[in-house]
Amino acid sequence: MTPTHMAREVAECPAAAARFLADTGPAVAAAARALRQMDPGLIVTVARGSSDHAATFLKYAVELLAGIPVASVGPSVASIYGRPLRLSGAACIGISQSGQSPDIVEMMRTAKSGGALTVAITNQDNSPMAGAADHCLALRAGEERSVAATKTFIISALAGLALLADWKQDRALQAAVAAAPEAFAAALSLDWSPLSARLSRAGSAFVLGRGPAFAIASEAALKFKETCGLHAEAYSAAEVLHGPAALVQAQFPVLALGVEDAALPQVIATAERLAAQGADVFLTGGEAKGAVTLPSVSGLHPLLAPLVLAVSFYSFVEALARRRGFDPDTPPHLRKVTETV
Amino acid sequence: MTPTHMAREVAECPAAAARFLADTGPAVAAAARALRQMDPGLIVTVARGSSDHAATFLKYAVELLAGIPVASVGPSVASIYGRPLRLSGAACIGISQSGQSPDIVEMMRTAKSGGALTVAITNQDNSPMAGAADHCLALRAGEERSVAATKTFIISALAGLALLADWKQDRALQAAVAAAPEAFAAALSLDWSPLSARLSRAGSAFVLGRGPAFAIASEAALKFKETCGLHAEAYSAAEVLHGPAALVQAQFPVLALGVEDAALPQVIATAERLAAQGADVFLTGGEAKGAVTLPSVSGLHPLLAPLVLAVSFYSFVEALARRRGFDPDTPPHLRKVTETV
Repeated sequence: MTPTHMAREVAECPAAAARFLADTGPAVAAAARALRQMDPGLIVTVARGSSDHAATFLKYAVELLAGIPVASVGPSVASIYGRPLRLSGAACIGISQSGQSPDIVEMMRTAKSGGALTVAITNQDNSPMAGAADHCLALRAGEERSVAATKTFIISALAGLALLADWKQDRALQAAVAAAPEAFAAALSLDWSPLSARLSRAGSAFVLGRGPAFAIASEAALKFKETCGLHAEAYSAAEVLHGPAALVQAQFPVLALGVEDAALPQVIATAERLAAQGADVFLTGGEAKGAVTLPSVSGLHPLLAPLVLAVSFYSFVEALARRRGFDPDTPPHLRKVTETV
Repeated sequence: MTPTHMAREVAECPAAAARFLADTGPAVAAAARALRQMDPGLIVTVARGSSDHAATFLKYAVELLAGIPVASVGPSVASIYGRPLRLSGAACIGISQSGQSPDIVEMMRTAKSGGALTVAITNQDNSPMAGAADHCLALRAGEERSVAATKTFIISALAGLALLADWKQDRALQAAVAAAPEAFAAALSLDWSPLSARLSRAGSAFVLGRGPAFAIASEAALKFKETCGLHAEAYSAAEVLHGPAALVQAQFPVLALGVEDAALPQVIATAERLAAQGADVFLTGGEAKGAVTLPSVSGLHPLLAPLVLAVSFYSFVEALARRRGFDPDTPPHLRKVTETV
């Protein structure tokens, strides 16, 4: 059987990461230098879909490593309501695979005219978004044929980490970024068959994470919807206890994305609590009473670990989609480039 | 039959709003004066659950009216990762009914020590969160016995609007806030029976909004989960087209919360697109081809309209919960005060 585009593109993550790191160093360095010079008091991000999950990942990374608050701005503030934001002293990072959605481009222009330093992270360095920005980090991930983004999510988030590491001159994170291709390769094709069996017919599920891994939970939930017709929803492992846990009845499937960082004990505690409610809980990164542990790559930098986990998830979900009878390359009702206003 | 606590508390919204406006004017004025004096370049919000939806509502209101970016900070950044954020020149608004969750209190303290002006919006003005803040806007909404928050969500969001109106000395918004009790009264018990019939047995649904109404969509989706055991998920009416629309098959229920503002045409366009995919679409605030229009209060200020719509939704969902065989006062697995770290 010919592999799907999605399967091929997930498998390309290690090579795409290596190519990005080899080709885009000077552009990353230039943007990092500009960030050091301006010393922004605020970062704003502009993105949609999977790219917005990469932006959420970057939010946690910047807040944890640089101690600077990050605001996600709804593109509608500029594109629909026509409201300029006061952004002097801020940097604006836009993330979009295509760089084409009019609302994203409009918000980048608004940010620049509001005084922000603007950085575009995109696979299309000749796109309108790239043209509207002061700096562009081109992903060079190659064409992505599957409608559901995978390698461009991974390389977008890696680009953000590379920028952060260079900006803050953080040697541990720089080393982690340099080792990303190898870690992504180790993450491919881990055996998550117990989860696959449980989800082969499920209609609903929760995906949990905390801190940077919450962004990966959001991305995983979207991929379940796009490629598997499964209504998965992402929650922080704390937030889920403030209401949504009401939905968790016996046998409700829960995927808890733990990584080896400071939040892991709290993720495990939530996993145990939901398992005690009768949920079918699957956990990465640790062990929880009543939960099934799924394998993951260990011993990673805590900001790289969530991205490595995303590669494992992509590999898993592509196979799950086929098992559920879907073609993961062509989700119903979607096209590759979504243009919203 | 005795009405549920939830039914009584939703019905109390008009009186609670009037009491808040009568009692809390001086506290609102003092906090607004402090905001005018400092002229913050950034607002950060700290909240969880329904209160976080009130914070999202306030984010759109502040960005649209004041043009200042608003960042939601994950409480985990302080409570789990122990990372101080640089917040000089920022104001931090914490929202919590109980004011007791340790992670929220910790983030308020971190914000204050990071240089932020801090404002607590809470129903418990003797709570740890209130004690940690420079200013406290007490809701005075009376005890909320239903686990699912309703009147405290409405009054928290109204408190935010009142603060914004006074801070920016915006007469139109001040007038809208003063008229809120009357508008809330008009919103009670509208006839949404076509939606009730459609959702009497549904397992999954989407709730859509855009701009400030997106916050109400988020709150509505949470209430569906908490009180009806219905897996409803909220999306912006633009975001839903960037992937989640793949889940929308024939007869998938969609509630599109339109209000009379600049985003309404885009909300209608999305409603029509999903109806054309075969979804069962219900819309407020306008008419869309293939969708059922639900009644709502019209002629309101665009920033008050979403809150008024929330009152109508609460009234509806309380009855739907009973129709689905749930006691809306006591959702499974939840307690009134959720303490997360």
